[in-house]
Amino acid sequence: MSADTLRALARDVADALAAVRTGPDATSASATDPEEAVAAALLGYLSEPGDGVLGRLVGVLGARSVAAALLAGRSGAALAEEVAAHAPVGVDAPSARELAAGVARWRPRVDETAFARSVVQAARVRARLLLPGDDAWPDAVADLGAHAPLALWVRGRPAALAESPSIALVGARAATGYGEHVAIEASAGLVDRGFAVVSGGAYGIDGTAHRAALAAGGTTVAFLAGGVDRFYPAGHETLLGRIAETGAVVSELACGAAPTRWRFLQRNRLIAAASGATVVLEAGMRSGSLNTAGHAAALGRPLGAVPGPVTSPASAGCHRLLREFDAVCVTDAAQMAELVTIGGVGVDGGTPPGAASRPDHVLEGLTSAERRVLDALGVRRARTIDELVRSTGSTPGAVLGALGALDATGLAARSGEGWVRRPPD
Amino acid sequence: MSADTLRALARDVADALAAVRTGPDATSASATDPEEAVAAALLGYLSEPGDGVLGRLVGVLGARSVAAALLAGRSGAALAEEVAAHAPVGVDAPSARELAAGVARWRPRVDETAFARSVVQAARVRARLLLPGDDAWPDAVADLGAHAPLALWVRGRPAALAESPSIALVGARAATGYGEHVAIEASAGLVDRGFAVVSGGAYGIDGTAHRAALAAGGTTVAFLAGGVDRFYPAGHETLLGRIAETGAVVSELACGAAPTRWRFLQRNRLIAAASGATVVLEAGMRSGSLNTAGHAAALGRPLGAVPGPVTSPASAGCHRLLREFDAVCVTDAAQMAELVTIGGVGVDGGTPPGAASRPDHVLEGLTSAERRVLDALGVRRARTIDELVRSTGSTPGAVLGALGALDATGLAARSGEGWVRRPPD
Repeated sequence: MSADTLRALARDVADALAAVRTGPDATSASATDPEEAVAAALLGYLSEPGDGVLGRLVGVLGARSVAAALLAGRSGAALAEEVAAHAPVGVDAPSARELAAGVARWRPRVDETAFARSVVQAARVRARLLLPGDDAWPDAVADLGAHAPLALWVRGRPAALAESPSIALVGARAATGYGEHVAIEASAGLVDRGFAVVSGGAYGIDGTAHRAALAAGGTTVAFLAGGVDRFYPAGHETLLGRIAETGAVVSELACGAAPTRWRFLQRNRLIAAASGATVVLEAGMRSGSLNTAGHAAALGRPLGAVPGPVTSPASAGCHRLLREFDAVCVTDAAQMAELVTIGGVGVDGGTPPGAASRPDHVLEGLTSAERRVLDALGVRRARTIDELVRSTGSTPGAVLGALGALDATGLAARSGEGWVRRPPD
Repeated sequence: MSADTLRALARDVADALAAVRTGPDATSASATDPEEAVAAALLGYLSEPGDGVLGRLVGVLGARSVAAALLAGRSGAALAEEVAAHAPVGVDAPSARELAAGVARWRPRVDETAFARSVVQAARVRARLLLPGDDAWPDAVADLGAHAPLALWVRGRPAALAESPSIALVGARAATGYGEHVAIEASAGLVDRGFAVVSGGAYGIDGTAHRAALAAGGTTVAFLAGGVDRFYPAGHETLLGRIAETGAVVSELACGAAPTRWRFLQRNRLIAAASGATVVLEAGMRSGSLNTAGHAAALGRPLGAVPGPVTSPASAGCHRLLREFDAVCVTDAAQMAELVTIGGVGVDGGTPPGAASRPDHVLEGLTSAERRVLDALGVRRARTIDELVRSTGSTPGAVLGALGALDATGLAARSGEGWVRRPPD
């Protein structure tokens, strides 16, 4: 019976598992069954990050059954039968073909000894194993759906992952003095506003953002593309160690796993998913931070980009995000904080910049005068009649008439001494 | 009979009028009746730019009748009766109250002698009087509706106003070296692409854009806020003279009229209306160029803004346009040219950046996989399946399935080796 193999494996790593599941911050871990923990850790160990077939398989059968089946050497066809027997109607269950390919990917990595070594190594570096449902688990990663991580390895303080609103500050390794200046101001300013600063621990913008957060006495979280036992890049070993003292260094890769190009890209999806918003501070056209930005956009997370001189290739990626990806232009920490705090609703109830525009059909019934007045209104700062007269070139009477009509249709509203545009419902 | 006074005035200024209506570039002027020309010039003379009541009054009665009535000293009440007798149903005719206020504004300026002097002065500086319907008249100003100019005074080559697609390059007087660099590159690059460069003749960005256009052998047009007999600012007398040699210096103000704050703001509406697109190159938070940008947006003209360092207050206005006014981020002349040449339709049939987004209801029926793939597609560059797999974190099968569904609903389309997002219909 395949469940025996999982039980045996849990016994083999019992001590190390106890260490990575409790540790100094014990209150943040739920009392998960050891076999459940071993199953999640094992599946993370033998798959590549973001494996949607595995995610969907676990969604149907649960991590324990899947881990036990793989330990027992069951075939894709056997798994497909089990899936067919258990998948509720409407669930996006993996096909037999996907399961055959999946098993072909996972089976070569089923090696209990190597896995046990990895858990022991995690215990040795005082890493912690976080599972969904743990207090410190970043629930927002559930938005990744089938691509969500099954477990996370954390060095430092797991609670850093969930205790504050967070913003990802990312950018190019090849940062300029301008980019570093922007990163320092942004990171320190966000810490002042109570945010945790999330980044990727890389040279350049990432490292500067982490450092500035630490210097400001804030919490910062680094997501790595390899195991947390080996800090990467090597030149940031000291920095990552300092991050782990008050914040957290996190990876979904098991200890011993080396960073690869794919893992960097998947690490980027975690940065985007675990953060309330993503801001690209400085990025050339080929910077990996644009990949993080793409994940944030795909997840519907607010995305900001800091502009720079158009003469600087180091800002070209940010300009592309502004131009082609509807990133919000953010120039300081206050505007970055606004991306998150408004959470899809404008500061004064208006649509945040970059949010979906009002459907065109709503606007089609407007007269040109109403349309001009509407165009001249902002969602934030109220415009006085005088301002509207000037900006639309209309008479006060025409402006008042248009405002009356816009008010009646819910497109504009009074605000203090003036008028604002109202967001779409 | 009031028409007699207009005839008498036309006789008084006949020689000067003949000069300002023909001149060296005679083919570009239509053979308008002299009384019609005098009427339009007179109404421009005695009103402030953008007077919507006058525009609507002329829309109902015609320039000749209105000019004759004002010369004859008729009251607002008398004009209101005439309007009531002539206004077709559905026309936005001025009310009796508006006409009373209008006559109170216009009548104090009815001074045939001073008007005649102004036309003589125009003839002396070889200015030309352009009227709607003339070959060189910039038809696009009709989008200003009741606020459109009734006549334009031009020094230089009137045809410069209508012969090429044009882009307004505007910005702050207090330009930095960065802004001037951007202005030179933009202006020269647009001339290379066959555009006329429109601006306001001011110090800083405007002047740099005009100069670079001249240096590149291109056509450039300056709109002034006062009469074209006196070049303003005085320090740009030589520059404006050079502009008039190959391009045009234009104003709706009669000769002798001094620039005022209101006239600068209204001049800005002409820059926006007469150009295919408006680009703000460098602007602080209080730059007048933001007013031009507001007019462009209100007119539905494409609006671009060039970003700069967030550390530079001289770029803060551009960043505000990007953040709050949906300006398109443009970083070079090619992107600026695209604002106009695409004219509301994307380069490859896609929506240009900053154009209206697809209504949300179209997206509501999508699965999350389809939505993620759609988010990962661009309207310009085609994405390959491999790229989409990476950027969405989905399997090739899921990406292909989503693309099939998006293709079927018209949201995505094949393009070369990959796929692009399709614009809303």
